[in-house]
Amino acid sequence: MLQDKFRLQIPGPTPVPPRVQQAMAQPMIGHRDPDCSRLVQECSRRLQPVLGAREPVLPLTSSGTSALEAAVVNTVSPGEEAAVVVTGAFGDRFAKILKRYQVQLHRLDLPWGEACPPETLASFLKEHPGVKAVFLTYCETSTGVLNPVEELAATVRQLTDALVIVDGVSCVGAVPAKAEAWGIDILVTGSQKALMLPAGLSFAAVSERAWQVIEKNPQPRFYLDFQAYRNHLEKDTTPFTPAVSLLFGLREVLDMIEEEGLEKVFQRHRLMMKMTREGIKAMGLSPLTSDEAASPTVTAVQGGKSWSPEDLRKELRRLGIRLAGGQQHLKGKIFRIGHMGYHDPLDILAALSAIEIAGVRIGAPVDSGAGIKAAEEEWIQCTEF
Amino acid sequence: MLQDKFRLQIPGPTPVPPRVQQAMAQPMIGHRDPDCSRLVQECSRRLQPVLGAREPVLPLTSSGTSALEAAVVNTVSPGEEAAVVVTGAFGDRFAKILKRYQVQLHRLDLPWGEACPPETLASFLKEHPGVKAVFLTYCETSTGVLNPVEELAATVRQLTDALVIVDGVSCVGAVPAKAEAWGIDILVTGSQKALMLPAGLSFAAVSERAWQVIEKNPQPRFYLDFQAYRNHLEKDTTPFTPAVSLLFGLREVLDMIEEEGLEKVFQRHRLMMKMTREGIKAMGLSPLTSDEAASPTVTAVQGGKSWSPEDLRKELRRLGIRLAGGQQHLKGKIFRIGHMGYHDPLDILAALSAIEIAGVRIGAPVDSGAGIKAAEEEWIQCTEF
Repeated sequence: MLQDKFRLQIPGPTPVPPRVQQAMAQPMIGHRDPDCSRLVQECSRRLQPVLGAREPVLPLTSSGTSALEAAVVNTVSPGEEAAVVVTGAFGDRFAKILKRYQVQLHRLDLPWGEACPPETLASFLKEHPGVKAVFLTYCETSTGVLNPVEELAATVRQLTDALVIVDGVSCVGAVPAKAEAWGIDILVTGSQKALMLPAGLSFAAVSERAWQVIEKNPQPRFYLDFQAYRNHLEKDTTPFTPAVSLLFGLREVLDMIEEEGLEKVFQRHRLMMKMTREGIKAMGLSPLTSDEAASPTVTAVQGGKSWSPEDLRKELRRLGIRLAGGQQHLKGKIFRIGHMGYHDPLDILAALSAIEIAGVRIGAPVDSGAGIKAAEEEWIQCTEF
Repeated sequence: MLQDKFRLQIPGPTPVPPRVQQAMAQPMIGHRDPDCSRLVQECSRRLQPVLGAREPVLPLTSSGTSALEAAVVNTVSPGEEAAVVVTGAFGDRFAKILKRYQVQLHRLDLPWGEACPPETLASFLKEHPGVKAVFLTYCETSTGVLNPVEELAATVRQLTDALVIVDGVSCVGAVPAKAEAWGIDILVTGSQKALMLPAGLSFAAVSERAWQVIEKNPQPRFYLDFQAYRNHLEKDTTPFTPAVSLLFGLREVLDMIEEEGLEKVFQRHRLMMKMTREGIKAMGLSPLTSDEAASPTVTAVQGGKSWSPEDLRKELRRLGIRLAGGQQHLKGKIFRIGHMGYHDPLDILAALSAIEIAGVRIGAPVDSGAGIKAAEEEWIQCTEF
């Protein structure tokens, strides 16, 4: 196939827009230079509406997992109790980090592909009244589930004084996130998903209530110490040399989001989700999650008895499109389509076409053309685009 | 002055070469894609000669300080004894991290601007026979001192079984570094100095002896867990999404280093150091360090009674060149010239000229033209270039 032309449609890293690439290629500046201070200040403030943050967002130079770890080491210490809602591989990662730091862990495991109902969390919290923090996953990347974090946060707030900590890595920037309004104490995300950047930056919005816990928490931390980031952000800088080129890119990304309009960005992602799901169903395949639990950023599709998702992905690669496989026990059993960030509805039609072609070729029970038709109809009916 | 034209000559971040900028703008790829595996594998192996590493170098997505912290949390645990040689702000940073993690700290403080003599370390180690690890700084960025880490490492090895841990952030890639041959157990460095990249990647070379300690060390760590990086590197990947765009850039940097030749890179840095130092002296100013203790990557210059380095830097900024000031107690007392990475001897002449012009303008006792003449003579006498 045409060399160097391929469509990256995995749930992150996502494609980087050309103007963001260009912005990142600006001449390097010193990290203590006034130009860099303006850059840090601008990025941390303009991210506030994206996360729904009360105060400027803390920018860490590291990938998403470090922000999960930061949320842990800043808030809980060994022996304290914490609850984790595990709906897939990234809820499980929170659990792994907590366990590594000897936090007394209460795991609420749900079947992979399902979202956590607020009632289930409520019962669970009643059984564990001692928890100091509840760790949630907004979009569970491994299954394409969007957990109802607004309701889950409200449930926690109603029943306990525990902090509400949310991993928003694979959806913030593509779906509404209102950390302060929803009572989320820490919301973290990363650069390489809906924010259309390469990996290397992660972000945290921290509530006043969380700061009170953080200030008293004896758990040692240095590079991931939120207080160091807040103290330096007050002087428009970072405690350690930041990934300046990614900050140049972030400023451009924020321009793009503001030009399109945050609400429109969300609508575009919802349309891409609907087109993907209706297309997949109409061609004869089955999404892993229900419509109600589905994330606007990633869709997982189940494999069948007569065909393997890995064979499908291999064939898709030949056609010029790269999708993701399953993680942990879903490895070989699903494939995942990322539809977040620098993607538009036409990309979805191309992806669905490719899946139809590859599906027929590998002998999957796929009805060629039917998926595209259903997806087009979703778009035709959509009044916003 | 001409807009957007400025010379960044601080001791990091350093300018990014145009071909590296272009390499970083390649279309994004998935972090679990075979293309990314090849990239990770290639970078980690081609870095081996740069660090003198026995095995492929671990690539972390984070800035230099996180690599210092990783060296701490992977090797020592609370209550254990460690020695730190503090020759400036970055030795002090090692001490701060160790203290944060409740390691029993023995600080060997030297006057800022001096290197640590091996005999001084030897006496110090004899007083503290219980230390499990000795933390050293190769180039102390805050003073422009290059510590004799080969001799210091040999001293440690001769006297104790302690691990030798070296911060090479502001010089590796510009000066010889032979981790294995010199008996350095952990050598860390960062992307934004001699390696000519933006900040966002850091690297660690780990010895077999260090792995044995690391494997048994109970200190919890997750994102900075060296074992996770080694285990994944065996499968040509990273445990967490890496900063892929910086890895694209790193591959290009390694091409550049190999094309110039590592030995030539070192010679170029030595010439730039000599030109800088002789120029500074000839124009009537005083380097902070002796010739013997000087680093080929950064030169600190003392302020005078009649003029302030901060005024000089302000004037230099107007002329189109950005130098660094002092850190901690040297703030306002020195200025620092970075001469590492994407700089050539002509850049040094431009910097010296600018310092002469700015110096005369602010009333510093500077002999205009004399610095340039001395620097040119260094170059004329240099047989390699």
